[in-house]
Amino acid sequence: MAEHDVTVKNTLKALADTKKYSSIKDILTTMEPVDIAGIFNDMDERQLPVIFRLLPKDLAADTFVEMEPEIQETLIRGFSDTELKAVIDELYVDDAVDIVEEMPANVVRRMLAQADPAMRRSINEILQYPEDSAGSIMTTEYVSLRATMTVGDAIAHIRANGVDKETIYTCYVTSNRKLVGLVSIKDLLLARDDSTKVSDIMQENVISVQTVTDQEQVGQMFSKYNFIALPVLDSEGRMVGIVTFDDAMDVMEEETTEDIQLMSGQTASDKTYVRSNPFDLFLHRIPWLIVLMISSTFTGMIINHFELALAANVILTAFIPTLMDTAGNSGSQSSVTIIRALSLGEIEFKDLPRVILKELLTALMCGVVLGTVCFAKLMIVDRNLLGNPDLTVKIALIVSLAMCITVLVAKILGGSLPILAKKIGFDPAVMASPFITTCVDSLSLLVYFNIARTFLHT
Amino acid sequence: MAEHDVTVKNTLKALADTKKYSSIKDILTTMEPVDIAGIFNDMDERQLPVIFRLLPKDLAADTFVEMEPEIQETLIRGFSDTELKAVIDELYVDDAVDIVEEMPANVVRRMLAQADPAMRRSINEILQYPEDSAGSIMTTEYVSLRATMTVGDAIAHIRANGVDKETIYTCYVTSNRKLVGLVSIKDLLLARDDSTKVSDIMQENVISVQTVTDQEQVGQMFSKYNFIALPVLDSEGRMVGIVTFDDAMDVMEEETTEDIQLMSGQTASDKTYVRSNPFDLFLHRIPWLIVLMISSTFTGMIINHFELALAANVILTAFIPTLMDTAGNSGSQSSVTIIRALSLGEIEFKDLPRVILKELLTALMCGVVLGTVCFAKLMIVDRNLLGNPDLTVKIALIVSLAMCITVLVAKILGGSLPILAKKIGFDPAVMASPFITTCVDSLSLLVYFNIARTFLHT
Repeated sequence: MAEHDVTVKNTLKALADTKKYSSIKDILTTMEPVDIAGIFNDMDERQLPVIFRLLPKDLAADTFVEMEPEIQETLIRGFSDTELKAVIDELYVDDAVDIVEEMPANVVRRMLAQADPAMRRSINEILQYPEDSAGSIMTTEYVSLRATMTVGDAIAHIRANGVDKETIYTCYVTSNRKLVGLVSIKDLLLARDDSTKVSDIMQENVISVQTVTDQEQVGQMFSKYNFIALPVLDSEGRMVGIVTFDDAMDVMEEETTEDIQLMSGQTASDKTYVRSNPFDLFLHRIPWLIVLMISSTFTGMIINHFELALAANVILTAFIPTLMDTAGNSGSQSSVTIIRALSLGEIEFKDLPRVILKELLTALMCGVVLGTVCFAKLMIVDRNLLGNPDLTVKIALIVSLAMCITVLVAKILGGSLPILAKKIGFDPAVMASPFITTCVDSLSLLVYFNIARTFLHT
Repeated sequence: MAEHDVTVKNTLKALADTKKYSSIKDILTTMEPVDIAGIFNDMDERQLPVIFRLLPKDLAADTFVEMEPEIQETLIRGFSDTELKAVIDELYVDDAVDIVEEMPANVVRRMLAQADPAMRRSINEILQYPEDSAGSIMTTEYVSLRATMTVGDAIAHIRANGVDKETIYTCYVTSNRKLVGLVSIKDLLLARDDSTKVSDIMQENVISVQTVTDQEQVGQMFSKYNFIALPVLDSEGRMVGIVTFDDAMDVMEEETTEDIQLMSGQTASDKTYVRSNPFDLFLHRIPWLIVLMISSTFTGMIINHFELALAANVILTAFIPTLMDTAGNSGSQSSVTIIRALSLGEIEFKDLPRVILKELLTALMCGVVLGTVCFAKLMIVDRNLLGNPDLTVKIALIVSLAMCITVLVAKILGGSLPILAKKIGFDPAVMASPFITTCVDSLSLLVYFNIARTFLHT
């Protein structure tokens, strides 16, 4: 939170304590809704309703949308029916749906009872779409034009009907509810002649998504095409809504955070770090820690299996961490790179052979260089500087060869497992560092001990 | 790449081979610039200039912007001065700057020579701003209004001058080059009366950035405020340009990819995975692999130091991987979570004590649960199922206690190191998994062996 917010927060608190409401109103109306919401989120619950009522109607609705669900619920419970209706009337449908999804059933019933019939119908419609689909994040409030309108008609239509639309910047041309084209307000305003037909300036090949399209894919399309809005069609090709860029940005941020959480061995959470208490964090972190700890039993079993060889050459034990860490780091470099490329839609299943080849070549270079550096380090640092006479050239060769091979295996596994995971319907992000580390731990030890056994004849 | 593109690509190739240029033109004009660029990136270098010349002027410029730098360079080298001028005239300044930054000096000289004087001045101005600053990603083409204009004047002004502006949707009200307010085209179009003064409907408290503001912070502001554009002011408070949401989305994607690369122990690359050859990947991956491998010498030294104790109790060796992995996973969960929260601007240095407290409490819960599960697993799986009689209750307690303590240490380090790194001017993302893993490896072994020595009196 910026220093600025803290200062304004203290000022507002002081003004609220001395009931200087008119000054509070003056301050709040100069601020952006999301900043006001940030202050409301941390405000005394008793002062909150009084101060919220100071906001002008549209600023109140915009601020309401940005608040934390618990605060929204507190406010709604304190609202009279008239106050609730005033806020809901000002909301865009997609924002209303977001709020409804977070509220308990009795609050939802009150909200729907106060919404006007068209709004209620739209909310219920959007609520039916699967979670994380384009349908669930769209709004039904868009500008719809007819192809036969002139530019002048269209501009007049927008000026008369645009007030409730989430965006007027991209307008959709429909015929019998089918999408036939799009025209931006820029195209309309910059058209040379007001009598030009919309059909003459509209773009006919319109990129759209289905109601069931995954929201991650919707986010990718926004970042690829730089659209302000994207039309959503139902299964029969009728236009039912639009997704706007601000919601797409939120989706991308959310999906990336989820990827990053999964990649570090946590279950996905939709609460921010600041809003999560230690018990929330514990619940998201403990499952994978337990799974990974138990699965490391295999590594222990491998070490037990080679116990005799290790007892005869205790020096081998000293390089277990180096080998395991290097293998883990090599594998996670590859897996994380591939997971990101999958998330951005750069690669897909059919690219698997190309990815494996690229990882193999990269791994060969990394393996040879690491093996060589490792050998040099062992001979110079460990043997000469640290004076470890047990470290023979043979042992150094065994360690370096094992390192070279495990880097190869780790990078190929790291590059291919996320793609295979996606193919069979898992989130590729779970195939990142912790999972790969556990896999390649066992593999690197097997490689190491088998090479050692072969060369040392133990 | 979508299946769709591949099919169109084959069709276009077949049409190009038989010189069916009029059909090629028809197909390309139905497509989005970024999709055409995707096809051009993989096209035969000899066919490319011929097919590029088929595109209508504005589509050609939009497509040019989306192509890979190598392809842009090939095309420019083939252009006549007139052709080059035609493309440059259609570019927005920020896109022209992006291209100039990627071209060799002789191509840049040709481009600047063909640009008209105003464009040349703007390009040179933007090129002066530090890399990754708001100034370097802004465009100078925005709509500027005067407060004394009426709504009708303003709309007429936009219709007459909007064609070269990157966005007309947010218009800036200036007075002596100082920013005094903003008004959206929606506000103008929906104003009740064309004779209303702009000063009466403009928003006076405008959020802006400085030319030197870091681009990551600019991205955060877009995702917070959902703006379409953000004004950029120079050090004397004069408005010099705007950053638009599409560039902000690109910046956020780029910064996140960079974070993810650093978090997995790679140096940041601005090439996509698909465009990187194995040698590029090798160069970005090998530095950290070598650094981390060499720094794991410490872990080896610790094991050597406790060699006698280990030789007497070889069973202890079997749990080294479990302990190290669990510590590494616990630490990386915390560090990655904190790095993401820092990137999204949710926390900053002053939150350090709060973060440490939260991580401590979370770590206590994780540590106690993991220690308990570990003890149960050792007694049930390792001792009874796998029949390992060396594994006494005492050894199981030593391992479990060491696990509990290392989880605590790992989480506190993982939570605080990224914040401290940011404070002293490093990118917090380097404090992620690989670095933390190497730190906590040594720590976990020290804790483990010291507990073992105390309890086993060896």
